[in-house]
Amino acid sequence: MRSVKALSSSFIALSFCGASSSTAQAPSSVQGTSIEISSAETRTSNPGAPANFTGTAQVEQLFSAHGASRLTGGVVTFQPGARSAWHTHPLGQILIITAGTGLVQQWGGPICIMKTGDVVWIPAGAKHWHGASSSSFVTQMALQELLDGKNVDWLEPVSDQQYSAGVPNVSR
Amino acid sequence: MRSVKALSSSFIALSFCGASSSTAQAPSSVQGTSIEISSAETRTSNPGAPANFTGTAQVEQLFSAHGASRLTGGVVTFQPGARSAWHTHPLGQILIITAGTGLVQQWGGPICIMKTGDVVWIPAGAKHWHGASSSSFVTQMALQELLDGKNVDWLEPVSDQQYSAGVPNVSR
Repeated sequence: MRSVKALSSSFIALSFCGASSSTAQAPSSVQGTSIEISSAETRTSNPGAPANFTGTAQVEQLFSAHGASRLTGGVVTFQPGARSAWHTHPLGQILIITAGTGLVQQWGGPICIMKTGDVVWIPAGAKHWHGASSSSFVTQMALQELLDGKNVDWLEPVSDQQYSAGVPNVSR
Repeated sequence: MRSVKALSSSFIALSFCGASSSTAQAPSSVQGTSIEISSAETRTSNPGAPANFTGTAQVEQLFSAHGASRLTGGVVTFQPGARSAWHTHPLGQILIITAGTGLVQQWGGPICIMKTGDVVWIPAGAKHWHGASSSSFVTQMALQELLDGKNVDWLEPVSDQQYSAGVPNVSR
């Protein structure tokens, strides 16, 4: 039988579906060894921290790292004109664009368009920002791995001048 | 400017969007340091290998591991009744259910339902299978990390008897 418990460590309510979850054992005894399922209605999203985002961005944590896995994941929706601050990821980042049209820029490079269905790799240590275009929202799944307990280093905001500095390259 | 090249190592056509991609340098000189973008129309999917899947399953690789990152990802669509063989992942696996209704089972445990929006964690080394329900397809994003170059160990097929052994637990 599946048992449900809100885990304070992640603030995500989980169901357990494992070999020992069919017994009367408490969820704490199966955590770590059993399949865990979080359903969409048990997760919440929060506004992006003003220090790290310009404009309206909403962040939903999908999962935190488990055991020896170092993978963390979330979903971010940016309203038109909204973007992250400049930042880096110690082991890089994968963005999967699930809706809308976004922009991404590496320090010193052009602003590029991200379309629905795109998979974007941002190399480890590459200073960059990503967000919505000025005329469309974007929803992106963001996947990043922890190094020494950290998956991001935040830098300065992307100024309005930087954001509007180049017409996105649509050569694809 | 963005340059495009099909990389033989991954068979995914990539665009580069990095600091040095605005020069005349060849893509090979920016690979590894530049943002890379693959668009949906450049990726292909293939039937799941018969040894590893029962029924009709289609597998699309989204990305392979880059640099020090050990993350790999794909999308699998299972038609009704289709499922993976039993298998394990050396560092575990995250499934994100993006459409339909699926099933997952850990060896010795109940068969559990996976609904659209669910995020499923399968612990490192846990013997399990996942697939569609008998009456619905399921589409899932699958994320797994490489350990010593390997992200899965395939085992025996899930028999019809195992697949239909229990009514899925829908207690959520």
